[in-house]
Amino acid sequence: MFKQQNSIDFSLPNWIYEFAKDKSFIKDVEDRMSFVIEASRRNVVENTGGPFAAAIFEIESGKLISLGVNLVTTQGSSILHAEMVAIAIAQKKLGSYDLGGKGIEKHELVASTEPCAMCFGAIPWSGVQQIITAAKDSDARSIGFDEGPKVKDWREALSDRKINVISDIQRDKACQVLNEYSQAGGKIYNSRERS
Amino acid sequence: MFKQQNSIDFSLPNWIYEFAKDKSFIKDVEDRMSFVIEASRRNVVENTGGPFAAAIFEIESGKLISLGVNLVTTQGSSILHAEMVAIAIAQKKLGSYDLGGKGIEKHELVASTEPCAMCFGAIPWSGVQQIITAAKDSDARSIGFDEGPKVKDWREALSDRKINVISDIQRDKACQVLNEYSQAGGKIYNSRERS
Repeated sequence: MFKQQNSIDFSLPNWIYEFAKDKSFIKDVEDRMSFVIEASRRNVVENTGGPFAAAIFEIESGKLISLGVNLVTTQGSSILHAEMVAIAIAQKKLGSYDLGGKGIEKHELVASTEPCAMCFGAIPWSGVQQIITAAKDSDARSIGFDEGPKVKDWREALSDRKINVISDIQRDKACQVLNEYSQAGGKIYNSRERS
Repeated sequence: MFKQQNSIDFSLPNWIYEFAKDKSFIKDVEDRMSFVIEASRRNVVENTGGPFAAAIFEIESGKLISLGVNLVTTQGSSILHAEMVAIAIAQKKLGSYDLGGKGIEKHELVASTEPCAMCFGAIPWSGVQQIITAAKDSDARSIGFDEGPKVKDWREALSDRKINVISDIQRDKACQVLNEYSQAGGKIYNSRERS
């Protein structure tokens, strides 16, 4: 008999609760990114996943809604990129699959690295109205991560959907974390070999 | 104080367990697709989500690994497309974020409609080595669903990564479900208005 699992359950690392608990509001955009990059570093140090983090904030107030980190290797799921985790938790918290719904504050996704093909595709569905990134996708590629087949003009594709894109906020700091991960021999998971 | 949620939990509808329990192996590809399309119809009839379903099978044996349905509106999460659900459950079951890992059987994703931009991006990370689809993305668009910004040559992009693409298996049958959903006034969730 086939047993279809009737739930999907993933755990976030224990450190994340303490890490975020004093950060109800972060006013300044640079500080929001520092917080996210620090979470990506912590994820490496704690050995709880890849060197990526992302958070959802209210754009205007800087209210923190969710913090996600990459959990691919530790939770055994290829869909658990930091952005997907942050989006899933934020939507659960707000009780809506649309973070851009009428009558609610506008939300942004702050991510330590530009999105891969999957996370890029997830952004329009999430309802966020702004994304802010630090490291470039080329920086992730340079340590061996594959960003997947994204449309070349992905920033324009988001802008066309009224999603504002802000790039290169503290890129160097995010790259440092990527490089530290790589130098420490962190797992570079990928899709199949291409040839 | 900010409370970071420490888990991600989603439930699948109750009917799905009974629906799949006699389907340990499905040898024939057409029958695999019939099973998936029937699940998409059931998801509409039961009012548990959008008109989409997807399953992971072992390619050779036809062993069913997981069945996913679209849960966006009922679980309040924009990432819960049928393909993402099927991938997440299959990886959990096999205990690996890579369904194409060495020493395990090859897996395929059978989906009632061609993937949106997010699910397309998720496919290479999942480790499946074949995708089989019924309805075209244009069929989903024709009832108002937005498939998002995908690379134009998305089939080739998958082939380049050694993922075999088989299209148009029982397209008409899958389109029937899409049309029934639309005619019954089913919710067409989307990204923000573009203009």
